[in-house]
Amino acid sequence: MTELSGNCLIGQSGGPAAVVNASVAGIVTEALNHGCIEEVYGALGGVAGLLHEELIDLAAESQQTIRGLRYTPGAALGSCRAKLKKPQDFERALEVLKTHNIRYYFHIGDGDSQETAAKLAELAKAQEYDLRVIGVPKTIDNDLPGTDHCPGYGSAAKFIATTVRELAADAEATALHDIVTIVEVMGRNTGWLAAAASLAKRRDQPNDPPHLVYLPEVAFSAEKFVEDVRRILKREKHCVVVVGEGLVDKDGNYVAVETTEVGAPAQLGGVGEHLRDLAEAQLGVKVRVARLGVTQRAAAHLASKTDSEEAFLAGQAAVKAAINGETDKMVTLLRGDGDHYTCETGLASFADVVGNTKKLPREWINEDGVSMNFQFYRYATPLIQGELTIPFENGLPSYVRLHGERVGKQLGGYES
Amino acid sequence: MTELSGNCLIGQSGGPAAVVNASVAGIVTEALNHGCIEEVYGALGGVAGLLHEELIDLAAESQQTIRGLRYTPGAALGSCRAKLKKPQDFERALEVLKTHNIRYYFHIGDGDSQETAAKLAELAKAQEYDLRVIGVPKTIDNDLPGTDHCPGYGSAAKFIATTVRELAADAEATALHDIVTIVEVMGRNTGWLAAAASLAKRRDQPNDPPHLVYLPEVAFSAEKFVEDVRRILKREKHCVVVVGEGLVDKDGNYVAVETTEVGAPAQLGGVGEHLRDLAEAQLGVKVRVARLGVTQRAAAHLASKTDSEEAFLAGQAAVKAAINGETDKMVTLLRGDGDHYTCETGLASFADVVGNTKKLPREWINEDGVSMNFQFYRYATPLIQGELTIPFENGLPSYVRLHGERVGKQLGGYES
Repeated sequence: MTELSGNCLIGQSGGPAAVVNASVAGIVTEALNHGCIEEVYGALGGVAGLLHEELIDLAAESQQTIRGLRYTPGAALGSCRAKLKKPQDFERALEVLKTHNIRYYFHIGDGDSQETAAKLAELAKAQEYDLRVIGVPKTIDNDLPGTDHCPGYGSAAKFIATTVRELAADAEATALHDIVTIVEVMGRNTGWLAAAASLAKRRDQPNDPPHLVYLPEVAFSAEKFVEDVRRILKREKHCVVVVGEGLVDKDGNYVAVETTEVGAPAQLGGVGEHLRDLAEAQLGVKVRVARLGVTQRAAAHLASKTDSEEAFLAGQAAVKAAINGETDKMVTLLRGDGDHYTCETGLASFADVVGNTKKLPREWINEDGVSMNFQFYRYATPLIQGELTIPFENGLPSYVRLHGERVGKQLGGYES
Repeated sequence: MTELSGNCLIGQSGGPAAVVNASVAGIVTEALNHGCIEEVYGALGGVAGLLHEELIDLAAESQQTIRGLRYTPGAALGSCRAKLKKPQDFERALEVLKTHNIRYYFHIGDGDSQETAAKLAELAKAQEYDLRVIGVPKTIDNDLPGTDHCPGYGSAAKFIATTVRELAADAEATALHDIVTIVEVMGRNTGWLAAAASLAKRRDQPNDPPHLVYLPEVAFSAEKFVEDVRRILKREKHCVVVVGEGLVDKDGNYVAVETTEVGAPAQLGGVGEHLRDLAEAQLGVKVRVARLGVTQRAAAHLASKTDSEEAFLAGQAAVKAAINGETDKMVTLLRGDGDHYTCETGLASFADVVGNTKKLPREWINEDGVSMNFQFYRYATPLIQGELTIPFENGLPSYVRLHGERVGKQLGGYES
């Protein structure tokens, strides 16, 4: 393998997460170990930065700042939901890469993001431009195939389970009469996040809250929901329900869609209120709805140390793979076979990742459809282990911002 | 002063908070130091436990459990919103106290709770039953008069400011075009909690989020709100708005009331959505609403150490005061005059506390009506300092539950 010399570029895209910046830190740290990588750049605002040549010099950041990225939420480079769509967008992106002699491109993001990276790799190949493209997975939804789990999931899971435990303590304190707490969590098409709420149960206490978990993998029935809640309220003083925003009925239609912008994915939300209305009307109980919203992906103050370390590791692995000549692949996380949890990185072809969604295995869900069995607990428990040591200043977590030294533009403006 | 021998009883009422159990721990710990206090009981479910003679033996709990109360959210004894209303309810409550030889009654709660305690003290006096009643303040709303601040406030403030900082990082990451984040916080009639969000600004960075804070103390105008947001979006890539649920218009009417149950206080909420609709309609921007809900009073995992310690201290002080012959009073927190924050306890007559609400001083709010000045920062910053060391088990905070050994009932049932 010939050594490929040139610059490297990092882009973030898709929704932010508590640990997505830890992958940036991993890439920067590792890139500086390799002499063949000259400059380490970041693209501002994901693919938008690529199109508009908005690049910053990450090697110019202080070491303190790069270390701070390991516990700073959001997406320090800026992210975007926009995808490269038209052929000329891809042409332009490649032109920007060539102009700045980018030979290593690292794209941190969810499934859609990996697709963009794959197409860019394809175009470079067609134009015989020697570019190595490696994706780094990131999604709290945990729905990427080919990897045991995704960076971002463990921290969101830890926050959700903690919050459900705390909300349950609050409900229990006031549960003089039947009270139902509904917690709505994210998860567009999969129940990984909703299932994570089950971790709030203490071991061997299956009757602990959450009492009912509604997953996108199990077709929702309003009648069954009402009966489920009724059953719990016979047994318990109060009932904690967790529901994934992407809940669908037996025909596969979302149970609650908030808004639909033309050309944009349906904006989910409101399923918590939908269930509240059902319970109040059918059972006459008092219902509180907590919609965790963006907090579940932003709560770096309660990030999983395991998740943060693996996000960093995935960033490092991306650089090592590219240096070793790999391209057109996404870093994966592989779980060891032993009883004790271990995690290594691997690689999967973009082709095997893009366009596929990994759902919760049906056999990890109990027959009642509203609770998880030991297979899920065995899977998810290691992912939420450990707490980060975050510096606090004036009583609050002290997160970092990039200084963001701009790389000079060499091309004219671009209109997509 | 004659020494008064007998048993003591603790009741919790009103909404739970992250540190309300720390006051229980303070009372139990201190009570066991005094030989004249024989048994240490807790009333289950606040005044409901008192009426129905549902008492537990707190001295029988393990020391480990009592220590665990210092970081366990909710209300370990159970709370309730119900008040003693009818004269026969007070008669019954006093009968229960007499039957169990309760000579010391400690009531932890908000303003309404202190009123109940005051009336009980009055009735005991009228019947010449030697009873010492001391209240311990607790409210995240921070609206009790006679005390510099209330246990519960500092922790809610810390959680709110942290969450606003994290939500802002998330919004900034995706702020390719104008985006407005609206964070709705609690605070029935006062803006103490909404104002606390301002602590998320870094020192000397007045342009940091939150950019706009709407307080119940400042009459809301839809026109001004729209202009405020427009102004911020001219200057910044995105706008973070914080709003207190108890926002009122110039006529003193709540801007958003969710439901009104007959005979119950208006259920506030929905003001975030109300502002969202305004901004979307008038400015055509994308708006995200985060309603922090119960999480802001339940998030013990991010409790303020200062707050937790003061809640414990207030519990201890209640016992010491009662032993010293005080009754019919609430413990207060007094701030020292020096530059360095110090806090001692004092006492206020129930008469001076009950029925009054402490609002944010107008002179702590800037003239723009949507931001706080240095006087507020000086006041609130010390209250959010420090983090608790909470034991984590299997990746989650390990909170405690009371064993709850019942005290035998000696009276017949009671129907209110």
